[in-house]
Amino acid sequence: MKYLEKWWGWGELDKVYPKDLTSHIHNILKERFHLSSHHSAIPQEEKIELPTSRLSTTDFEDLKNISSSATEDHKTRLCHSLGKSYIDLIEARKLKRFYAPDAVVFPTSVEEIVHVLQFCKTRKISLVPFGGGSSVLGGVSPEKKEDHQAVITLNLQKMKQIFEINPLSNTVHTQTGILGPALEKELNQKGFTLGHFPQSFEFSSVGGWIATRSAGQNSTFYGKIEDMVVALKILTPQGLIQTKTVPASSCGPSFKDFFIGSEGCFGIIVEATLKIHPLPQHKTYQSFLFPDFLQGIRALSHIKKLNLSPSLVRLSDAKETEFLFKMESLKKDFFHLFQKKFFSFLLKKKKINLGRASLLLIGLEGSHKEIRYLKKQLKMLAKNTLSLGSRPGWKWHKSRFELPYLRDALIDQGVMIETFETATEWHNIENLYRKVYDTTHTILGPKALVFCHISHIYLTGASLYFTFLTQAKNDPILQWHQVKERVTKTLLQEGGTLSHHHGIGRDHKKFLIEEHGPLFVETLKEVKHFLDPQHILNPGKLIE
Amino acid sequence: MKYLEKWWGWGELDKVYPKDLTSHIHNILKERFHLSSHHSAIPQEEKIELPTSRLSTTDFEDLKNISSSATEDHKTRLCHSLGKSYIDLIEARKLKRFYAPDAVVFPTSVEEIVHVLQFCKTRKISLVPFGGGSSVLGGVSPEKKEDHQAVITLNLQKMKQIFEINPLSNTVHTQTGILGPALEKELNQKGFTLGHFPQSFEFSSVGGWIATRSAGQNSTFYGKIEDMVVALKILTPQGLIQTKTVPASSCGPSFKDFFIGSEGCFGIIVEATLKIHPLPQHKTYQSFLFPDFLQGIRALSHIKKLNLSPSLVRLSDAKETEFLFKMESLKKDFFHLFQKKFFSFLLKKKKINLGRASLLLIGLEGSHKEIRYLKKQLKMLAKNTLSLGSRPGWKWHKSRFELPYLRDALIDQGVMIETFETATEWHNIENLYRKVYDTTHTILGPKALVFCHISHIYLTGASLYFTFLTQAKNDPILQWHQVKERVTKTLLQEGGTLSHHHGIGRDHKKFLIEEHGPLFVETLKEVKHFLDPQHILNPGKLIE
Repeated sequence: MKYLEKWWGWGELDKVYPKDLTSHIHNILKERFHLSSHHSAIPQEEKIELPTSRLSTTDFEDLKNISSSATEDHKTRLCHSLGKSYIDLIEARKLKRFYAPDAVVFPTSVEEIVHVLQFCKTRKISLVPFGGGSSVLGGVSPEKKEDHQAVITLNLQKMKQIFEINPLSNTVHTQTGILGPALEKELNQKGFTLGHFPQSFEFSSVGGWIATRSAGQNSTFYGKIEDMVVALKILTPQGLIQTKTVPASSCGPSFKDFFIGSEGCFGIIVEATLKIHPLPQHKTYQSFLFPDFLQGIRALSHIKKLNLSPSLVRLSDAKETEFLFKMESLKKDFFHLFQKKFFSFLLKKKKINLGRASLLLIGLEGSHKEIRYLKKQLKMLAKNTLSLGSRPGWKWHKSRFELPYLRDALIDQGVMIETFETATEWHNIENLYRKVYDTTHTILGPKALVFCHISHIYLTGASLYFTFLTQAKNDPILQWHQVKERVTKTLLQEGGTLSHHHGIGRDHKKFLIEEHGPLFVETLKEVKHFLDPQHILNPGKLIE
Repeated sequence: MKYLEKWWGWGELDKVYPKDLTSHIHNILKERFHLSSHHSAIPQEEKIELPTSRLSTTDFEDLKNISSSATEDHKTRLCHSLGKSYIDLIEARKLKRFYAPDAVVFPTSVEEIVHVLQFCKTRKISLVPFGGGSSVLGGVSPEKKEDHQAVITLNLQKMKQIFEINPLSNTVHTQTGILGPALEKELNQKGFTLGHFPQSFEFSSVGGWIATRSAGQNSTFYGKIEDMVVALKILTPQGLIQTKTVPASSCGPSFKDFFIGSEGCFGIIVEATLKIHPLPQHKTYQSFLFPDFLQGIRALSHIKKLNLSPSLVRLSDAKETEFLFKMESLKKDFFHLFQKKFFSFLLKKKKINLGRASLLLIGLEGSHKEIRYLKKQLKMLAKNTLSLGSRPGWKWHKSRFELPYLRDALIDQGVMIETFETATEWHNIENLYRKVYDTTHTILGPKALVFCHISHIYLTGASLYFTFLTQAKNDPILQWHQVKERVTKTLLQEGGTLSHHHGIGRDHKKFLIEEHGPLFVETLKEVKHFLDPQHILNPGKLIE
């Protein structure tokens, strides 16, 4: 678990965003923002004082007897003290007012978890399930219920056994502590893929994906995680739940859908059976430059009507497209092309203005025949666009898990960078886009950069993914709360969902009632109280 | 609501299964069973005495003030006294020991329902939501909670307004009392289809489909009803719930999935927004004769692996295939072909033995290009089979809603006819099929006819639909319970789901704990108690 050691930032301990790119972006941004030095400051963990563990010596000894892995070690507590939200990264850099779990446990079996649950129930200790720890919404924040004496983090990464890959039924049955790459590697070796690639893929777990009802970059083709879950095994404080492993059923409300998105509040998801797909014979990309975002949206809204299933859809608005072109402009590889007169000539011919243009990346997977068929159909939808071939797609593919490293670099330079992601119906896409875009600029001023792309499409609508960059203020956490509050309210008022990718965690909790109404939240609280009467599981997340 | 008047049987008042076919089947079956006259007996409703309404005069007057449609009329109560299960049809023919709702209400607005709910809450009166009334599991049986004074049936068929068909977002927003044909007609006129065609299509409602988590004949392509629901509006005794109209979300457990399959026990589903699809440009069928059922199963298990989406899949086992051929053997239309020497020659050449052969019908929908592509792929999967062209498929299409009329005719002849439907993973299909088949024959003896077909396919598995015919005994209800009990236990023990199409209702209720485990049933009861504290909604169904 080497990566966990980089508690102050994203990813592998020794890896940073490519220096040349960081420096190039620095140059682009310095016209707008006051930037500080862009070398990552590595906080020294010895300098950070953590609050003393609130577990009594007896409690800790008893815990040790249940799970020999239990530790109060300074570094381990520190590494489990936060996730990867903007607030987490800011707090990590402050080195002060730090909180941490009082102990961390690394169970290796279901029986061990049962005992830990029993221990926490009887001693009134809060328990935070921890998968990869990549939550961007404070989902693994080690919060303690007020009347509890301590909080323990339950790191599930040793629960990583794959029990079976079934090539007849196209399923994998696995423990849920396994991280994306380890699972995908095993599947690939047997000729299969799960097809779930959130940006956090390298550092997030199956259990985390399920607990947050997550989306991946290829969900337009493979579905979100809720479309992949065939069955779950969950340890609740009231006992074991095992949902039935069948392809479909009409036996009452869907029980697995009680737990997909339950954010560790109802029980610990310990095993999952997931749908897997034969590895596609071929993968490729296409890219098109639309005259503007709306024409791109219109084309996308027809893809599912035509029953087409690209593996990736990513349509950038004008600002994001412009920024992507700028990011490439100093490099001499593929975007070289665009600097040539020929490119200008083509743009003119197609009446495409680079300041308004909208870049669409499309991923294609399948047999040669399938891909040929898809390409033909897409060609018709992308009339009046400039085709840019497969290279922009492959380029995106290569760096598709890298952006969180850039976030660290930008934060270190004094930039506030955050995302909003939502989904709405096709008829409301333009309105929602415009309102969120305008609100963000109204709050942040004209110097801020606000980007948006459509990241997933459905027959009935699509998801919008906003990224914004602005100058961080002296109190970046207050600044964050102000922006989050106002943009989220706009997004909800205008018919967007509170989250399409990331979940609820700590940071979306207060908006949940606006998403679902009071009776839903009350119903969830009833379920919570029934399954976890001592309220030990993940306090401060989702509903309470 | 003319069709409701045929309270003793299926469908339209004046319609029976075609006489020539009935007579032909009579001839086939008389070798095995003692058959009585095969003219449908039409019970005279005047001769049936219903229990006096348990509503006091004051209560009924107050109810009338809330909803002027409220009635204690003999015929109306009679028509709402049962659904369309085998038990219902047997009880209807007995004319005795009859029960009925004490009153029936036909609300026309949400406000009216709110008042009816309030009335039932304060007066301790049970309330049974009633859509089309076609439940084959006693889902609309007018049961009264023990400590309640009466039971009212809430017929929702006047709540049939379509609010909007949105051609951009591909959704329909409708009240839920609307029946299949009325909704589909409106959609077709706008160039769309819902694609939900349960066998009960003509006489079942949107609300009923949702409340029972139902499947339709084309669910392999269009999905089950849970895949179509975008949003729901539900009136619970504790208040209104409106789920968000978005294509996808990661905001906690799926609330709509609390209500899809809730069988009217948590609230009245009054409005739904459903995904709709552009009408396919073309529809056609293909059919193949496999050497045996297992080779057919093997071919089917590859269809979804290849990412193909036929609109219909129906693979009959040897006995069902043989019966279908027999049913056609005396007629001179399309199966004529099979009697010719040429057909025998082809069978020999393909080494197909008609006693073991397995008939596959495949439905294809889409553009010419899509259909051509599908056909090519299917051809490869159906090597070593005898292709029978499109006619068997079109023939099935023509009579796809007719079989329940045949059921009535057979019951009148003294035949017990019932179905079991389930689903399991591909690796377990053969085992489950064999065990259910053997158990049914062990119980019913060698003279019984037991048929099976695969009705839906998924990437991970398929549904099995069993039909059996046997000689009805003197106590057909006891006989039914004995068969139901033993076959259901086998089905559950061998990894099948309790129901893939039909739901739970009254008749599957006691098996629910085996499907989901005790903690699920207890959780549902908690939710029920929270949303319906007086337990007025649909007593005796689903969980209690």
